[in-house]
Amino acid sequence: MMMKGGHNHLVIMAGGVGSRFWPMSTPERPKQFIDVMGTGRTFLQQTVDRFEGVVPSENVWVVTSAAYADMVHEQLPQVPRQQVLLEPCRRNTAPCIAYVAWRIKSQDPKANMVVSPSDHLVTDVEEFRRVVSSALAFTETSDAIVTLGMKPTRPETGYGYIQADLSAPSLRNKGVFRVDSFKEKPDLATAKQYIRHEAYFWNSGIFVWNVNTIVNALRIYAPEISVIFEDLLPVYGTDDEQRRIDEEFPKCRNISIDYAILEKADEIFVMPADFGWSDVGTWGSLISLAQKDANGNAVVGQNVSLYETSGCMVHTTEERRVVIQGLKNCIVAEKDGTLLICQLSDEQRIKEFSAV
Amino acid sequence: MMMKGGHNHLVIMAGGVGSRFWPMSTPERPKQFIDVMGTGRTFLQQTVDRFEGVVPSENVWVVTSAAYADMVHEQLPQVPRQQVLLEPCRRNTAPCIAYVAWRIKSQDPKANMVVSPSDHLVTDVEEFRRVVSSALAFTETSDAIVTLGMKPTRPETGYGYIQADLSAPSLRNKGVFRVDSFKEKPDLATAKQYIRHEAYFWNSGIFVWNVNTIVNALRIYAPEISVIFEDLLPVYGTDDEQRRIDEEFPKCRNISIDYAILEKADEIFVMPADFGWSDVGTWGSLISLAQKDANGNAVVGQNVSLYETSGCMVHTTEERRVVIQGLKNCIVAEKDGTLLICQLSDEQRIKEFSAV
Repeated sequence: MMMKGGHNHLVIMAGGVGSRFWPMSTPERPKQFIDVMGTGRTFLQQTVDRFEGVVPSENVWVVTSAAYADMVHEQLPQVPRQQVLLEPCRRNTAPCIAYVAWRIKSQDPKANMVVSPSDHLVTDVEEFRRVVSSALAFTETSDAIVTLGMKPTRPETGYGYIQADLSAPSLRNKGVFRVDSFKEKPDLATAKQYIRHEAYFWNSGIFVWNVNTIVNALRIYAPEISVIFEDLLPVYGTDDEQRRIDEEFPKCRNISIDYAILEKADEIFVMPADFGWSDVGTWGSLISLAQKDANGNAVVGQNVSLYETSGCMVHTTEERRVVIQGLKNCIVAEKDGTLLICQLSDEQRIKEFSAV
Repeated sequence: MMMKGGHNHLVIMAGGVGSRFWPMSTPERPKQFIDVMGTGRTFLQQTVDRFEGVVPSENVWVVTSAAYADMVHEQLPQVPRQQVLLEPCRRNTAPCIAYVAWRIKSQDPKANMVVSPSDHLVTDVEEFRRVVSSALAFTETSDAIVTLGMKPTRPETGYGYIQADLSAPSLRNKGVFRVDSFKEKPDLATAKQYIRHEAYFWNSGIFVWNVNTIVNALRIYAPEISVIFEDLLPVYGTDDEQRRIDEEFPKCRNISIDYAILEKADEIFVMPADFGWSDVGTWGSLISLAQKDANGNAVVGQNVSLYETSGCMVHTTEERRVVIQGLKNCIVAEKDGTLLICQLSDEQRIKEFSAV
């Protein structure tokens, strides 16, 4: 007999190129492959770690781009090569999820899945496991599409929001609500309105469903994508898989799972959660999450000495020695022969800086 | 017949450890061995270059510490190994000059010498050559000890001063004056008084004398040092020289040529000069000498982009790419895995920073 949770599968989406953390993060080594917090584990490794006990280790899948395959294998040696799926090109999350859903279904038709980004931070891992286990229990016996909604702690304009329908007490007992609507990243005034209502949650991008639910939803709402991966059923797990994926995958349109399915399907639920989550999308969010010294500096690096310096984010893991004197509210980051010093308040210009 | 100036010898003192330019300059590679200005030539190389036509290239001598021998040979391949004298330990300038004086005398008893630091900057090389040639002509036929005195352009507190006796018109015709006294680095008020008088000059540390003059002065004023190097006359130029120097040199007391000779001897002259000299003793002096952009930034490094940045000294020759935004009046220097960012106004603390 299979162990409890033996059909639980973890899908980690690790194809992002994270340009906002330049020069720490580069297209050659994006954020998920970096030990951003200086903990000794990369974001990708931390992501796998936090599902321990929730998903059997042999049921971990990673979808990434071919360019990152070696880094995935290096950082997750326990994940078999055939469970690291390689996208030949970037087509956003819907084709990615369609591929891995059919791939898992071909092997485990009773699979129950959680899909997670690879570059987010969770501080309360115990609570995370409780919530994800609860969501998996819910989707094991239902056709629900569940997204984890974070209780907002501030009027964040960098996240999308989920508006829940709080009117059904029978669902509340299961810890979920139906989704009324998904909201794009709001302006500050709108975000302030949202957080006044208990019905609004941050969209974490963590999804839970059983494989038949997502496959059926894709068949209905994205049939032209579905047919591509359904047709490939005979080659999954064979030597021919990558070659055929390389041929067929690029034919998919570029569309997110949010647009393709979540905003259209009926049985969409949000499971409210509060496990210290951040998408760590900016240096500013990183400094707010990191351990700070008495002057509000967050330092990742060896042998860093600060004098008359406050509110700075220092990320200099490749320098042997760093001395900073007289800086306020700056980012100082060095990586692979590239040095960035910039005001934290100007970090939205990093894309511009890195492009020159 | 020997060419004109055939007895002219250049002695470059290249043993300094230059701690004020950390991390650009380190004890492993002090300032004189660095292309500080980004010109393609190190200070040591520039020093040799500026004596071209004044001293025959075969008469160039370098005194340095054993640790720097390879760097000297690498940067000055034209200087024969036996003319690079290696001090086994640091004993300040008097023992250094005594060693090289007897060493040169053993080979060329009619030698006429100019002694120069290796880490200074001269902007008007043509005028430099004119002045040095004139000083060498003076010492060729006199027992004068000549030091080059720079016409002060500001009340600099980082230099020692020379007070000249302007009362002898016969000397003025030769372009020299007798020295009244040497002055230690003054405070600002004193420096301001000095530069109001035309009798005060900056002490450049560039000396000119013939070899018999300096040898005789050493015999009189530093007999215990003199006897050491006089006793070694039989081994100069032999395979035994280094071994004996390694034994004897450490016995010398630690004393500068200024204290040992210049402040005691009688026939001391200053030759006023104005060839754009700086000892480049601080980052501040470097930025004042360097080419600057419209915002007063001096940049030595490749691919450096500055935004809203002014009055900064950037020296990042090992970085492939540097972006700096929103800094004012700072030093940004990176070298060999060490990064320094500090306010220019606090640069006197660099020694403290580098020691930690």
